[in-house]
Amino acid sequence: MNYRTEKDSLGEKQIPVDSLSGIHTARAIENFGSIGGELNPRLLKAYGFVKLACAAVNHSLDYLNDEKFAAVEQASRELSEGLIELPPAPAALQGGAGTSTNMYVNEVIANRALNISGLSSGEYNKISPLDDINLHQSTNDTYPTAMKTAAIFASIELEQAVSELADVFQEGERKFSEILKLGRTQLQDAVPMTLGQSFGAWAEAFSKDRWRIYKCKERLRVINLGGTATGTGAGADRRFIFAAADELRKITGLPLARAENLVQATQNLDEIVEVSGILKALASNMFKIFSDLRLLSSGPEGGLGELILPQKQAGSSVMPGKVNPVIAEMACQAGIDAIAKDSAITTAAISGQLELNAFLPLIADNLLGMFDNLIIAAELGTSMLAAGIHADKQRCEKNIHSSTAVITAFLPMFGYEKCSQIAEKARKESKTIKQYLLERGLCDESTYEAMTSPETASSLGFRKPNR
Amino acid sequence: MNYRTEKDSLGEKQIPVDSLSGIHTARAIENFGSIGGELNPRLLKAYGFVKLACAAVNHSLDYLNDEKFAAVEQASRELSEGLIELPPAPAALQGGAGTSTNMYVNEVIANRALNISGLSSGEYNKISPLDDINLHQSTNDTYPTAMKTAAIFASIELEQAVSELADVFQEGERKFSEILKLGRTQLQDAVPMTLGQSFGAWAEAFSKDRWRIYKCKERLRVINLGGTATGTGAGADRRFIFAAADELRKITGLPLARAENLVQATQNLDEIVEVSGILKALASNMFKIFSDLRLLSSGPEGGLGELILPQKQAGSSVMPGKVNPVIAEMACQAGIDAIAKDSAITTAAISGQLELNAFLPLIADNLLGMFDNLIIAAELGTSMLAAGIHADKQRCEKNIHSSTAVITAFLPMFGYEKCSQIAEKARKESKTIKQYLLERGLCDESTYEAMTSPETASSLGFRKPNR
Amino acid sequence: MNYRTEKDSLGEKQIPVDSLSGIHTARAIENFGSIGGELNPRLLKAYGFVKLACAAVNHSLDYLNDEKFAAVEQASRELSEGLIELPPAPAALQGGAGTSTNMYVNEVIANRALNISGLSSGEYNKISPLDDINLHQSTNDTYPTAMKTAAIFASIELEQAVSELADVFQEGERKFSEILKLGRTQLQDAVPMTLGQSFGAWAEAFSKDRWRIYKCKERLRVINLGGTATGTGAGADRRFIFAAADELRKITGLPLARAENLVQATQNLDEIVEVSGILKALASNMFKIFSDLRLLSSGPEGGLGELILPQKQAGSSVMPGKVNPVIAEMACQAGIDAIAKDSAITTAAISGQLELNAFLPLIADNLLGMFDNLIIAAELGTSMLAAGIHADKQRCEKNIHSSTAVITAFLPMFGYEKCSQIAEKARKESKTIKQYLLERGLCDESTYEAMTSPETASSLGFRKPNR
Amino acid sequence: MNYRTEKDSLGEKQIPVDSLSGIHTARAIENFGSIGGELNPRLLKAYGFVKLACAAVNHSLDYLNDEKFAAVEQASRELSEGLIELPPAPAALQGGAGTSTNMYVNEVIANRALNISGLSSGEYNKISPLDDINLHQSTNDTYPTAMKTAAIFASIELEQAVSELADVFQEGERKFSEILKLGRTQLQDAVPMTLGQSFGAWAEAFSKDRWRIYKCKERLRVINLGGTATGTGAGADRRFIFAAADELRKITGLPLARAENLVQATQNLDEIVEVSGILKALASNMFKIFSDLRLLSSGPEGGLGELILPQKQAGSSVMPGKVNPVIAEMACQAGIDAIAKDSAITTAAISGQLELNAFLPLIADNLLGMFDNLIIAAELGTSMLAAGIHADKQRCEKNIHSSTAVITAFLPMFGYEKCSQIAEKARKESKTIKQYLLERGLCDESTYEAMTSPETASSLGFRKPNR
Repeated sequence: MNYRTEKDSLGEKQIPVDSLSGIHTARAIENFGSIGGELNPRLLKAYGFVKLACAAVNHSLDYLNDEKFAAVEQASRELSEGLIELPPAPAALQGGAGTSTNMYVNEVIANRALNISGLSSGEYNKISPLDDINLHQSTNDTYPTAMKTAAIFASIELEQAVSELADVFQEGERKFSEILKLGRTQLQDAVPMTLGQSFGAWAEAFSKDRWRIYKCKERLRVINLGGTATGTGAGADRRFIFAAADELRKITGLPLARAENLVQATQNLDEIVEVSGILKALASNMFKIFSDLRLLSSGPEGGLGELILPQKQAGSSVMPGKVNPVIAEMACQAGIDAIAKDSAITTAAISGQLELNAFLPLIADNLLGMFDNLIIAAELGTSMLAAGIHADKQRCEKNIHSSTAVITAFLPMFGYEKCSQIAEKARKESKTIKQYLLERGLCDESTYEAMTSPETASSLGFRKPNR
Repeated sequence: MNYRTEKDSLGEKQIPVDSLSGIHTARAIENFGSIGGELNPRLLKAYGFVKLACAAVNHSLDYLNDEKFAAVEQASRELSEGLIELPPAPAALQGGAGTSTNMYVNEVIANRALNISGLSSGEYNKISPLDDINLHQSTNDTYPTAMKTAAIFASIELEQAVSELADVFQEGERKFSEILKLGRTQLQDAVPMTLGQSFGAWAEAFSKDRWRIYKCKERLRVINLGGTATGTGAGADRRFIFAAADELRKITGLPLARAENLVQATQNLDEIVEVSGILKALASNMFKIFSDLRLLSSGPEGGLGELILPQKQAGSSVMPGKVNPVIAEMACQAGIDAIAKDSAITTAAISGQLELNAFLPLIADNLLGMFDNLIIAAELGTSMLAAGIHADKQRCEKNIHSSTAVITAFLPMFGYEKCSQIAEKARKESKTIKQYLLERGLCDESTYEAMTSPETASSLGFRKPNR
Repeated sequence: MNYRTEKDSLGEKQIPVDSLSGIHTARAIENFGSIGGELNPRLLKAYGFVKLACAAVNHSLDYLNDEKFAAVEQASRELSEGLIELPPAPAALQGGAGTSTNMYVNEVIANRALNISGLSSGEYNKISPLDDINLHQSTNDTYPTAMKTAAIFASIELEQAVSELADVFQEGERKFSEILKLGRTQLQDAVPMTLGQSFGAWAEAFSKDRWRIYKCKERLRVINLGGTATGTGAGADRRFIFAAADELRKITGLPLARAENLVQATQNLDEIVEVSGILKALASNMFKIFSDLRLLSSGPEGGLGELILPQKQAGSSVMPGKVNPVIAEMACQAGIDAIAKDSAITTAAISGQLELNAFLPLIADNLLGMFDNLIIAAELGTSMLAAGIHADKQRCEKNIHSSTAVITAFLPMFGYEKCSQIAEKARKESKTIKQYLLERGLCDESTYEAMTSPETASSLGFRKPNR
Repeated sequence: MNYRTEKDSLGEKQIPVDSLSGIHTARAIENFGSIGGELNPRLLKAYGFVKLACAAVNHSLDYLNDEKFAAVEQASRELSEGLIELPPAPAALQGGAGTSTNMYVNEVIANRALNISGLSSGEYNKISPLDDINLHQSTNDTYPTAMKTAAIFASIELEQAVSELADVFQEGERKFSEILKLGRTQLQDAVPMTLGQSFGAWAEAFSKDRWRIYKCKERLRVINLGGTATGTGAGADRRFIFAAADELRKITGLPLARAENLVQATQNLDEIVEVSGILKALASNMFKIFSDLRLLSSGPEGGLGELILPQKQAGSSVMPGKVNPVIAEMACQAGIDAIAKDSAITTAAISGQLELNAFLPLIADNLLGMFDNLIIAAELGTSMLAAGIHADKQRCEKNIHSSTAVITAFLPMFGYEKCSQIAEKARKESKTIKQYLLERGLCDESTYEAMTSPETASSLGFRKPNR
């Protein structure tokens, strides 16, 4: 293999001659091994936009000539679009607050730009990772900016996915509006309701989540680009500082804005904690609702059995015909995973010190990982599961009519005391409420049906108090 | 001791004759012992408002006559204002989704109303905990409503406390604007900045928190009052359902509104997870910023020593004169505590099943406890600590001028390469940058002072690039 | 009110003349308000033993005369036995690494000893909180020692409670060994088993917990008493250092030992993280198993309905006769609570710096609170729930025999392929497996019963492969 | 591309003709996308051993003939040794309790064994993934067994890595035993100690961790192999059940044993929670100690500056010569990551239901990921950081001698009161304690040096009380 020699403040290193990465990447790989796995591709793509915006401003201020800029622009765009075959990158849980990722990006863009210009990798006197690609920048401002940019893009995907999930449940609300079922509190038989109401509640919960995620953008849009090392803009041209965030806004089409107080924006990660907390609200709904699906489809015979989930894969080599709610289980795990990642983010955020948080790499990795898994769970949860749910109407009705809980439908007719007695006696005589009521002449069949109709069950409260 | 006999569906029990609580409370105390400690007083106070609102609507619908209502109104108000000497209550981590707290409140209000009416505790045929105080209600709607009402009241207190904390740091921004200090990233000497900028960053962070807390109200204001057991309003007069939330809004003056989808609002706790996540953002700033204060006041001689915190208590019986940053340590612990309580809330929220979350008592206790501790930490953090911070100006200046980091102030003058060489040589010769620059005639004293003035340090970037 | 004047290094303060606490307590109450609630009584009781051990050694070394020691001994013992009517104490989440609790204990013991000696509170020239009660000690060694001592005592209680819980389930293993039931994986019908096996599994899980808790003592027994401020024993008589831990061991009867490396033992909290992690294993079993009870008792008609839990309180004012699994819900909440407290402990433990962890008060409060709630949950979970569980044998049998999962009992007879076909056909024809097998003459009734007997179901694997 | 047709209970699918994986893998990839990233290689390697052990027992019981077994044995060993070029596998957070991973392994081994035998992939009538490779097994027993086996292997690596880390600090204890430094509590100057004592404390903490990790094996060694679906061994030959765990023990050389109570061992994950909790104790030490290194190396001029960490990469493009403690920051992040993974494991563990925990894939992924990251952090923390730490002796001495905390060294000579006065006066006169003592003739130079020597500082307590 052929090598080129690169050099930094610590000394020299041999780098494979054609490599798109350089000495900083090489040291980072030695230093951090594979800890935490690979960098999130969303981060690298967003970094491409950040570098492009910076190069564009530097070009407009005559720090980069047209030719250089053209090459850098193309290289940056290729990075953002995932078109570069990337060399090995530093690991996700790198120390250094993201310096190694920034330098990796600087090196890759510089070398790719060199290649585009017909030059060899490593000819940094022509296009330099530091003096050109990183000009007027620091890891401390570009890294959080790239993280937030990536997060906003991801939030748009997630919002879309959650919106579709809500829509599918919304359809269920209509589709199952005529199916009476047992409402349960604390897993105990409680009152009649419709299956449509269950689906409506789930749809509404995910609609709230959709709105939440939509609002995340507001919390992520203020960036510290231009602040360089501590938010004072040390080493940056004042004109650059005032132009960079705007340029990134234009390039990405995202509603980004420069922080008024760059010192603050560089050192505190509260917005990320907040966004992660908001994703956790989605995660909690996701776990809860997909667990409800697992419960309602339990059995089929020996469980609640009210829902029939689409069969996606064989479930067992011991029990013939067993099919498990694997998609729901996946979504629940995405919920747990998001909650754990939120916990990692929070612990890292509180551990920031003075002008910087050294644990940005862990924060970025967990934040973007949360988005990744929640997006997949929402998308597959929709297409592979929610869109194909069927109801076992018979089972729904059997469960409610065989339960003494159906007596609550008659509260407006008999009052609590009498209902209590009826329930108790029916239970003792091992009769259904219907049997008991009809046998004792307490109501006739059509009244029973009216009182326990889906319409009655799903209308709020009672109209004419019989007390 | 004299006893009265009370009765529920499980049987009879002897209750001390004058006790304001009854059989349901007695069973709950046997069932749950002291698990999790005492009920949060905020919850009981808010429950007083909820019961008053319900009684008022029931009165307007002629379910309660004027006399009864007058007594119930007074009893409820007394509960809300903390004027009743309360009997022992069920423990905080009770099972039953809050039924025992609801019944305790029902019993206390009924008995207190009886006493107000000149009747004896236990004369439930006159005023009944269930048929009067709990009329048209369920634990499943009143309990979350009381929790949210209590949380909004608490959020108003917290907003005020955090606002004052931000104000005090804001004053520091002005007061310390002329003190040059070392900016540190990853705890390593980085660039010059002013102490005012540090205080400004902290003030800004807490201002964001103030805004966040203000916005919490929007997430908490939608209540499920009227939904009774599962959100279907089973057992409730339809007119009651449509009036109760409005009445509570009037009584409390809070912007409460009835949930459109009561079934949804009864079963999911995502708003609480979200609010708790938002409080966690405050908690993360609180831990981080009060840790910064601990760091900057470390020493005094053998640490950073740049800040002098007010002395609040003797620190050691071994080390004479040692004074510890006890208020900051308290605030940091409030941060950790809030983060842990958020975790409890989240785990409980995901564990909800179908039409109800059985773990509401744990959720309410942790949510209101978060508020309690954050309020105290913010209030005492302001009055006992932030308001009395002094700067050790000499130490601040010594730290920056003795550090080679001061060379970054000269980046616009010399460029990165030359600055590097100067820094390296100064370090080797054990000279300060100033000594080195002046001795070599690289700049004169007045230029040194201009380049390292607080004004220069706190202005964004450089104006005239010298490259 | 009459006052006495007390003084510390910060100045003077008026203290109610008869108060058992003094100036350090007064400042601490001003500084910390009620943050985090009251001190855990276990900590104060254990602190009494620690102070007694120290006084005894100081007495043996002639630092305390016989008379003084007699009074201090009595006062310390009274504290440990909960016999002193305690004055208000500093709050649980105090800053200062526990200094305020230590000083509170010093003041209370000194003043109580003065009163025992016929002297007035505050006559510290006779018996001094600092020079006598705190002699040769620091908060930094006595506080962790008291915390560990309290934790060992609590672990003994918890072990006992968990042991009884395991015993009750063990009885269930025997009692229900003849009841066939459906084994479910992923909530889907899987294979036949006995209810006794379910109880046996739960008993075994809690037996493992019992053993875990028993082993906790080994992790808590090494104490840093004698290390004073940083583990160097600064300010302590060398002879005291070598005797104090032994004395505490004798007084408490616990297997305590002095840490070899006192510097280490003073600064790291890994043992507490470990013990808390071990309690979390119990908490996870507690949540899981009590949730299983909630699941198996769900319904009764519209759920699994296989278990009948004892009724402990009325469940609903809407649904007549509804009874909720309140004790199981309490135990589950104790599990969640313990997990959250473990999280608080861990975050605090990693935040220790250099020679001390400033957040010991939060750590102690959470550790001892975990024990409190787990003890209550285990005790009440045993007496109020586990001891009174009944099986609904009919329902158990109906669930298994109506499920196609019963076909797995015939795997050794027919093999997987044929079993699959039988299951599929039976399902299509809406027949039970039994009906199908008997109708087709695939087996006779007695064979069916033999293959699905509790004995067969609970024996491991099959004996004679028919393939 | 050429395809073969495979079939399962849901229907047929086209599979690339040479693929080592089959229809179950194909469905799983469709179902779960890339959620949670790739399967941990440790799990697949361990699964190879499990399948080998099962095949060996089935061979000994004549279920597999010699020829088949030879091929399966080779294929399994290749999997365990990482010699197979693996086809795409189902994602880490798959639903189905690990069924997809088990089936993937079954398919890969079957196809590889077919290829070894000179047959084509997909000729399952010759060697079947289900009837041969999965014979007498279920996901529910093989998956947890593979997870535990992988975890024990990982624990051995981790133990080794932590042991070396402890050793390096141990060397520091010797190397730096003569360097006096400031001991700090709550970041405030406290008492003199030696730098060797600091290193000794760190070494001791990691030694405890080493022991903890060693003991993990005991908690992981009991496996449920043979239990099949719910621990009843349904579908397995009784002789297989009694032989499989033993065979795996022989093959791996690990101290594995079959659980007495297989039903219990199949449904509860408390051992994993416990082991994860134990790793969390290591994680807490790792975060705390590497944070201490960050603190002590802060500056260099404007921080504590007592330690000099090896320079591993350039730190800044703004601040010349800045070098950050990147390895320590990586190790701290590994700590946070482990704590978050423990949280994921715990939430998943409590969510198990009845006879199985559906979230095993998340649990396995987090457990093995914890090991991965902690191993890397410990190894690189040793070689890249701990082994190359230097002390700045001058700075250490300056920090202690310029601090009034040095007065604590004179407690045995002057007593607390006089020391207090000396400290206060020295502070007022801006003198060091040494200056003050010598100027006032309170001690001579040699006494000063004796009282503040490393030997004195590191000996426990004082010998001759002067009071």
